[in-house]
Amino acid sequence: MTKRKKEKSGGTDELSNPTEGMEKRIDDNKKKWKNMAVRTLWTFVMIGGFFAILAAGHSMVVILVVIIQTLVYKEVIALAHVPSKEKKLPWFKTLNWYFLVSTNYFLYGESIIYYFKKAVLVDAFILPLATHHRFISFTLYCIGFVLFVANLKKGHYKFQFTQFAWTHMTLLIVVCQSHFIVNNIFEGLILFLLPVSLVICNDIFAYICGFFWGKTPLIKLSPKKTREGFVGAWICTVIFGFFWGSLLMRWNYMICPVSKDLTATAWSGMTCEPNPVFISQKYVLSPWLSGLLKRLIFTDIRTIWIAPFQWHVLVMSCFASLIAPFGGFFASGVKRAFNIKDFGQSIPGHGGITDRMDCQFLMGLFSYIYYQSFIKTTSLSVGTVLYSIINSLKPSEQLELLDSLQQYLIGQGLVEEGKVACVSTA
Amino acid sequence: MTKRKKEKSGGTDELSNPTEGMEKRIDDNKKKWKNMAVRTLWTFVMIGGFFAILAAGHSMVVILVVIIQTLVYKEVIALAHVPSKEKKLPWFKTLNWYFLVSTNYFLYGESIIYYFKKAVLVDAFILPLATHHRFISFTLYCIGFVLFVANLKKGHYKFQFTQFAWTHMTLLIVVCQSHFIVNNIFEGLILFLLPVSLVICNDIFAYICGFFWGKTPLIKLSPKKTREGFVGAWICTVIFGFFWGSLLMRWNYMICPVSKDLTATAWSGMTCEPNPVFISQKYVLSPWLSGLLKRLIFTDIRTIWIAPFQWHVLVMSCFASLIAPFGGFFASGVKRAFNIKDFGQSIPGHGGITDRMDCQFLMGLFSYIYYQSFIKTTSLSVGTVLYSIINSLKPSEQLELLDSLQQYLIGQGLVEEGKVACVSTA
Repeated sequence: MTKRKKEKSGGTDELSNPTEGMEKRIDDNKKKWKNMAVRTLWTFVMIGGFFAILAAGHSMVVILVVIIQTLVYKEVIALAHVPSKEKKLPWFKTLNWYFLVSTNYFLYGESIIYYFKKAVLVDAFILPLATHHRFISFTLYCIGFVLFVANLKKGHYKFQFTQFAWTHMTLLIVVCQSHFIVNNIFEGLILFLLPVSLVICNDIFAYICGFFWGKTPLIKLSPKKTREGFVGAWICTVIFGFFWGSLLMRWNYMICPVSKDLTATAWSGMTCEPNPVFISQKYVLSPWLSGLLKRLIFTDIRTIWIAPFQWHVLVMSCFASLIAPFGGFFASGVKRAFNIKDFGQSIPGHGGITDRMDCQFLMGLFSYIYYQSFIKTTSLSVGTVLYSIINSLKPSEQLELLDSLQQYLIGQGLVEEGKVACVSTA
Repeated sequence: MTKRKKEKSGGTDELSNPTEGMEKRIDDNKKKWKNMAVRTLWTFVMIGGFFAILAAGHSMVVILVVIIQTLVYKEVIALAHVPSKEKKLPWFKTLNWYFLVSTNYFLYGESIIYYFKKAVLVDAFILPLATHHRFISFTLYCIGFVLFVANLKKGHYKFQFTQFAWTHMTLLIVVCQSHFIVNNIFEGLILFLLPVSLVICNDIFAYICGFFWGKTPLIKLSPKKTREGFVGAWICTVIFGFFWGSLLMRWNYMICPVSKDLTATAWSGMTCEPNPVFISQKYVLSPWLSGLLKRLIFTDIRTIWIAPFQWHVLVMSCFASLIAPFGGFFASGVKRAFNIKDFGQSIPGHGGITDRMDCQFLMGLFSYIYYQSFIKTTSLSVGTVLYSIINSLKPSEQLELLDSLQQYLIGQGLVEEGKVACVSTA
């Protein structure tokens, strides 16, 4: 604190020189302060807005992600435009937006069909859209593809194909990845909020640790990043994640998946049977470990309660600290390749929205795949199985299944043989 | 025939001039003839090889597709290489191959898990690979991504990012699309052979019709293509497809999906319960239509037998004639953008393999999606349902399901009530 003050007063000292540049200096300083104020104001606006949206329910969070994704797509696509050439190719910008819309139609359709199966299957208007969803999406893509080829213009081929490739890469890296973030929201808000927090936390601590201990440069792409900051942020993120995760997982609104109830908010008292990973288990510490703790923190701890999810958070923290920053380096590289400082001016004082989101996409995809692979419990319930039996099997097959299931349960000793023999004769 | 002979003899006449260029002419002509011979020879080698592979079983066809896909990837990726710059970036070529391998690991893994579920789930060695397949694939991709970012070199950024985008577009357009061709093979060889034939047939008839009636140019990209050729080929492909489809669908080896039996060949007598779309239905012609036919072809036809699949083939023929050629135009555009005549020299006398495959990828994806959306019957069988019940439901849920199913079947009048009441008490 004192150090900073000194620097500031040092700055004021210089200003006291009654030279010609003085007024300019004051102007510059005013601008700097104004910029800082704007930046701070918008930081609070963003934080406040974020929590308000978070509390307003899953659908609001999804809308937020869609808006952010669209802005990032716009900023990244704009990079590859060469304005002078673009003027002669009026369809080109339209086509980029067309590809965004049709990709989103495909991806969000897939999510909605998967997560809201019953609602979709009941609605007579949506049903045909759902059953032929992939065909409709493919048709949309084909129209875009044909329009692209039909609009190829002599002398612009290389430019147009490069743009086409760039659009496809952006669709893959930004749009598809943010789609998985939306799936995370449906699986439970904690899967959205925790990864986002881990990345932000890692960003902040990389800055702080780098500021205090940073000496060795980390990567040529970002000269300001240091190894000390990288490692320090890793440690801090792991500790933060462990406690932040254990805090969030106590709240049903965070851990309950969305089933049909998109109207839930933070105050509506969402309930569900929690995934067992969120339930704390008792661990008995080995004598030497509790002895060590006693010496270190003067407390006699013999047992601790930890939920399996907290171990999973450790993995996610490590990913947020070690791999996700490469998303940021990638974005820095893109900025350097196109000789720009920021991706845009979407957020006053902060630069483009892409500058704030660069690591979030990779983290979101990781969280999704990690969750699907290691955390998610089977999504089969008695209801869904019965539903598919009734809808997809013929009556004769239903009877056959009933018979087989009984035979199996008899074999398992769960049903008494004599009592069920009567059914197979029906 | 005479016309061609005349042209040839005209060529020989010119050669009789005793000028200096004569020997060169003879040399040129020899080369031309040798080239023609090589091209013809290789055309027959390809056709013969193709049918031999087709008869050798599904797995051989899959291997063929994988080889072709790899060659196309190699040719397309090579386009964006700038050799002089590439030398300084030794990891770059390796990374491109790494991305191909990891994408294929992901895609073929998905197919294998989907089509050979039971075999995979039983094998203790493959099982962990299957249950965490997506996570492993993502890890592989992340390694590639991190290596790419870590290998970014100052002064090459723009080149490297363009290459990265190009690689991703190729992965999407070539590798992902050919993956769906593999899925088609597993669903039944007809879904592979028919689209491939339709595209080839359309190519040939576009050439023939263009040769005889071609006047109006079709698209600036390919000056040799004409509207007359395009429309003529469309009509011919529709007629060819209708009959070729009705011929192929009579053969079990063509229409049976692969379930577990990858050892089947054309002679092993594959059997299955055919999809109802392959079974011919009787259509009674309206009097005026049969009257029309009588006047036109002097035959009294009152009823015809047509399988629903033949109508589907009409749609596929139209796609092969109207949309798939845009894949070819796209490839022409790429060649023009990079100022090359052919994509490579993979097939002696034919140019690169990409030149022969350009329309096949889009057609393969279309066939897959069309099949999934409109032709495929439900894949649920009593066995798979029972399998998922036993593996994914707890014993208490299994009992609950048994009870619910019985209640449902009683409600439907398929099971008598008094006889089953005994089970729910078990």
